[in-house]
Amino acid sequence: MRHLMSPLDFSVEELDQLMDLANDIEKNPEKYAHACDGKRLATLFYEPSTRTRLSFEAAMMNLGGTVLGFSSANSSSASKGESVADTIRVVSCFANICAMRHPKEGAPLVASMYSRIPVINAGDGGHQHPTQTLTDLLTIRSLKGRLNNLTIGFCGDLKFGRTVHSLIEALVRYTGIKIVLISPEELRLPDYIRDDVLRANNVPFEEVIKMEDVLPKLDVLYMTRVQKERFFNEDDYIRMKDFYILDQSKMDLASPEMLVLHPLPRVNEISVDVDNDPRAAYFKQVQYGVYARMALILTLLNIKVD
Amino acid sequence: MRHLMSPLDFSVEELDQLMDLANDIEKNPEKYAHACDGKRLATLFYEPSTRTRLSFEAAMMNLGGTVLGFSSANSSSASKGESVADTIRVVSCFANICAMRHPKEGAPLVASMYSRIPVINAGDGGHQHPTQTLTDLLTIRSLKGRLNNLTIGFCGDLKFGRTVHSLIEALVRYTGIKIVLISPEELRLPDYIRDDVLRANNVPFEEVIKMEDVLPKLDVLYMTRVQKERFFNEDDYIRMKDFYILDQSKMDLASPEMLVLHPLPRVNEISVDVDNDPRAAYFKQVQYGVYARMALILTLLNIKVD
Amino acid sequence: MRHLMSPLDFSVEELDQLMDLANDIEKNPEKYAHACDGKRLATLFYEPSTRTRLSFEAAMMNLGGTVLGFSSANSSSASKGESVADTIRVVSCFANICAMRHPKEGAPLVASMYSRIPVINAGDGGHQHPTQTLTDLLTIRSLKGRLNNLTIGFCGDLKFGRTVHSLIEALVRYTGIKIVLISPEELRLPDYIRDDVLRANNVPFEEVIKMEDVLPKLDVLYMTRVQKERFFNEDDYIRMKDFYILDQSKMDLASPEMLVLHPLPRVNEISVDVDNDPRAAYFKQVQYGVYARMALILTLLNIKVD
Repeated sequence: MRHLMSPLDFSVEELDQLMDLANDIEKNPEKYAHACDGKRLATLFYEPSTRTRLSFEAAMMNLGGTVLGFSSANSSSASKGESVADTIRVVSCFANICAMRHPKEGAPLVASMYSRIPVINAGDGGHQHPTQTLTDLLTIRSLKGRLNNLTIGFCGDLKFGRTVHSLIEALVRYTGIKIVLISPEELRLPDYIRDDVLRANNVPFEEVIKMEDVLPKLDVLYMTRVQKERFFNEDDYIRMKDFYILDQSKMDLASPEMLVLHPLPRVNEISVDVDNDPRAAYFKQVQYGVYARMALILTLLNIKVD
Repeated sequence: MRHLMSPLDFSVEELDQLMDLANDIEKNPEKYAHACDGKRLATLFYEPSTRTRLSFEAAMMNLGGTVLGFSSANSSSASKGESVADTIRVVSCFANICAMRHPKEGAPLVASMYSRIPVINAGDGGHQHPTQTLTDLLTIRSLKGRLNNLTIGFCGDLKFGRTVHSLIEALVRYTGIKIVLISPEELRLPDYIRDDVLRANNVPFEEVIKMEDVLPKLDVLYMTRVQKERFFNEDDYIRMKDFYILDQSKMDLASPEMLVLHPLPRVNEISVDVDNDPRAAYFKQVQYGVYARMALILTLLNIKVD
Repeated sequence: MRHLMSPLDFSVEELDQLMDLANDIEKNPEKYAHACDGKRLATLFYEPSTRTRLSFEAAMMNLGGTVLGFSSANSSSASKGESVADTIRVVSCFANICAMRHPKEGAPLVASMYSRIPVINAGDGGHQHPTQTLTDLLTIRSLKGRLNNLTIGFCGDLKFGRTVHSLIEALVRYTGIKIVLISPEELRLPDYIRDDVLRANNVPFEEVIKMEDVLPKLDVLYMTRVQKERFFNEDDYIRMKDFYILDQSKMDLASPEMLVLHPLPRVNEISVDVDNDPRAAYFKQVQYGVYARMALILTLLNIKVD
């Protein structure tokens, strides 16, 4: 039995198969509409994440399966002191596969060790969120046609951004990848990613403070939120905050082929006037998230459709 | 694509078709049991309303469809600052139709402007609650056989009662309607309804303080709750509160054909001894609410069953 | 129409039929996979109980039925002052059968008096939790092959333990039952169970303070949690707490055939090193809970499968 804890759990070949499956689902949804008839997904969300939870639920329902679970820890047995190990053994009696979101790093891994059903890490603290990475990869591959020979910019909070770290770790396994890191000094990519991932894999990268300087060369711009409270002082925040807000005037500097991605929710770091730009892919990304999760559920349940 | 924001979004003819459909559903539920197979409703409830939410969910499930969503704002991305516009674009990837309840007036309208799926306003603050009005009209039409030539009394809090305002606006489009307004001085119907709706449409109406004075002439009595805190002073409340409590002794004054409606939840404004009176229609009204929502979902999804 | 309020609502013969049905479901789940197609369960949980709620939901979904409801009182109309009687009349329009959990004793009984659909008491305060008792009986009968001629130990908080009281009441209807009560003085079985149930039915029983003294003679050990705050003083707690923690060294004293049951959630009263002992039956018990609820739903809906 197989679980998904980290995006790196799948080899590049396995990821390719998964994305091929996701693209076939995209083209022929009706072919998969009953693939999971009689199967059940448990969504165990120890902290709320509506978008991720609903994406998993939509994925399972699109496959003909059913869903049960909880959407916050208040309504779970955790408040009575039950361990994650016990909870997953109980839930193994109720469902065929499980998606777990937990504020503590490693909780889904512990669950997977005691589970009789496949466990998907749906986000564990600041650690991993592998289905977001699958979604990001699928979106890029589907809309750019490839995952190699790409220059990919990451903009915003690169220090705490879990999705940024995971996507970089996944991308360095492809050839011809160049990374451009756009962030304030305070929110630079951590050393352990810069050294152990980028440098260790000989991936060319550069670090800049202003988006404008690098926009023309990007194939993909991955935006994230910059929270005011992460800055050292108010002056820095006021001076720099506009550097990390993408608006139409900045889009004018970019290539007509550049994709804009964002893991959502977006607050104000992408101006709404960008939404109608054909390069804005962050809502398409949500749709690819459903296809990615459908392909993942089928793969972990070892269900083939032909 | 069509949304439902206000009961007046439908013409009288369209409402007639919708109610004909609801009555056919009532008579032949099995005919519609798979009409929405493979379709999905999202219930986006930014404030809790169990009865309305479950009514929508039962309606969709009666049609063979599935449901996902959230039941309060805590568990939604709204708490992370996501706009309603972004949420509906995301939810458009997960579902085929959406029912939105929101504490802010106009939020469902904003959602409908950015949505790729039909949006139903399931109540927006003190503003509109159109499926309650559809329910009320369907209940009256089904049990009285007509929506014209009726004398309809509204009793209780006519100032803040959203359902009262909406139902009056819907009823004035029919012929031969007389309205009787029964409320304390403090809770009279607002001028903008009295003048712009009743007077502007030449609908005869009268305003009284005591139910007993008008009960014998009513075809329908629409009850609402009178909250103590809405009175100017304690003395007024104590003096008048029994005027707005319907009990069996008051029912004895009414016509044997009079219907009693209430949008529920009821607290004590209808005495439980009225529940077994054949004229008490407020629980049948709940059942008609399911039929009305089933007909609405089919209409907005443009699904025909024959 | 029939409800389930107490485990004693079923005669011994009816319980046998129900457990025969549960065992047939266990052996032939696919035979029942569409038994409740088009039927709907409402889960009305006025206080959270994830395990019980998900067990009911899994049971209904295993039968092909659908589920709606709420998982805590915040999100229910109860917060607007609606009575349980009104709520169940409303829910009767939305579902075919209902499971109600309520912090107040007797609330499900009140609901059943006004309901148009079967009501299952899913736990009412410290009073009854009949589906737990069905689960316990089914687990013992399935794994021991019988419900008579058994020596059953109850360990821990026998004073407040609702599941213990209910299971004892159910067991005394079988022949050859011997009961062993293992608890601190402060948490002894209440007189009304000892006198009115055990003595009144001439069921042999003994009361001890330490598990070790009686383990070798038990066919079944039913563990419950001992909460620190239930002790009269800290010294007693420290002196005695280990008496009520089952670990592998205590298991070594027991018969190789003894079953260990626990209603869960477990905190630390069963050491995790016992989990892999073949006599540990508390996770199998969860699975039997699903079968018991499936059999119960079919029985109350009067659905036969052949």
